[in-house]
Amino acid sequence: MPKPSLRDSILDAGLKAMFRTGYHGTSVRDITSAAGAPQGSFTNHFRSKEAFASEVLDRYFTHTRTLVAQALEDTSLSSRMRLRRYLDIITRRLEAEGFGRGCLIGDLSLEASASSELLRTRLAEIFQEWRVPFAACIAEAQTAGEIAADFAPEELAEFLLASWQGAMLRMKVERTAAPLERFKQIVFQTVFKEPS
Amino acid sequence: MPKPSLRDSILDAGLKAMFRTGYHGTSVRDITSAAGAPQGSFTNHFRSKEAFASEVLDRYFTHTRTLVAQALEDTSLSSRMRLRRYLDIITRRLEAEGFGRGCLIGDLSLEASASSELLRTRLAEIFQEWRVPFAACIAEAQTAGEIAADFAPEELAEFLLASWQGAMLRMKVERTAAPLERFKQIVFQTVFKEPS
Repeated sequence: MPKPSLRDSILDAGLKAMFRTGYHGTSVRDITSAAGAPQGSFTNHFRSKEAFASEVLDRYFTHTRTLVAQALEDTSLSSRMRLRRYLDIITRRLEAEGFGRGCLIGDLSLEASASSELLRTRLAEIFQEWRVPFAACIAEAQTAGEIAADFAPEELAEFLLASWQGAMLRMKVERTAAPLERFKQIVFQTVFKEPS
Repeated sequence: MPKPSLRDSILDAGLKAMFRTGYHGTSVRDITSAAGAPQGSFTNHFRSKEAFASEVLDRYFTHTRTLVAQALEDTSLSSRMRLRRYLDIITRRLEAEGFGRGCLIGDLSLEASASSELLRTRLAEIFQEWRVPFAACIAEAQTAGEIAADFAPEELAEFLLASWQGAMLRMKVERTAAPLERFKQIVFQTVFKEPS
């Protein structure tokens, strides 16, 4: 495996640091120091901390997309169960991190969207793209009669991803899977229940 | 009206600053400077930034409790509609702030619960207390047959408050009421729908 570039090391260190102390609480010095890079090297690679955070977000979302595909393209499952599978995959990953980390996209949505228009705009684009495969999967489930068709697929996709952020927020306080499991149990017996 | 004490001024300034730049991004210097107080005065009043943030949280939650009471004790409404009323009251307040601020309890849950055990513990207590009047209202609605009794009132109360945090998170990115309205519309036609 090739040695990661200094640029990649700085991006990796930034992801870890922002998970721990957020966007505002992470300085360029924190990031370069964690990456073992001279502080001056930051500006060789990134225009600003804001532009840097936007790139960290993009890399994080690229990874998220592979998890989305892993669940929603699993043709061994019904469309409805693929939605559930996504939440189960995320649950397992959160558990592996001791429930101490949630989702960077959610973290920066709460913390940085009021103060950085650049990050807010990028986050809005990410959420818009994120919901597309979910809306498609929900539309398939509706067509197959696996869930009710009372709401547009896009609305249900937005609802699912937003409410799941709330469940992860509660998980970070409880440090257990309970808020995640509660969410899945209630949502798949109500909003996404099988029509009787 | 009596002049607020320096202690109160520092707490008020801390609330505003943490709404803007979070827990990690707000320094003691930022807070005292915004309060027009000498930096040294902070330690006369607070043991640490952590203890200070915990007190800001308590004051914020005291205010939240009055909004909860305003909605859930409104005997002119059915129990089910009181739940809805709470979300409508919060929606109006978020709108008055241009959708740029969400809920400090949610903000600190995401941002500080991984790094501060003191704040995490206090947040857990707050959520536990917060859900009590909601669970009571949901139990009443179930007894009155206004909503289904498929889940325990405590579970539904936790679900409602957690998922609503997710809706506010999305609101901060969109800067519109759409995520809040979508949440209310879907939840009150599914999880909290009137039995047919």
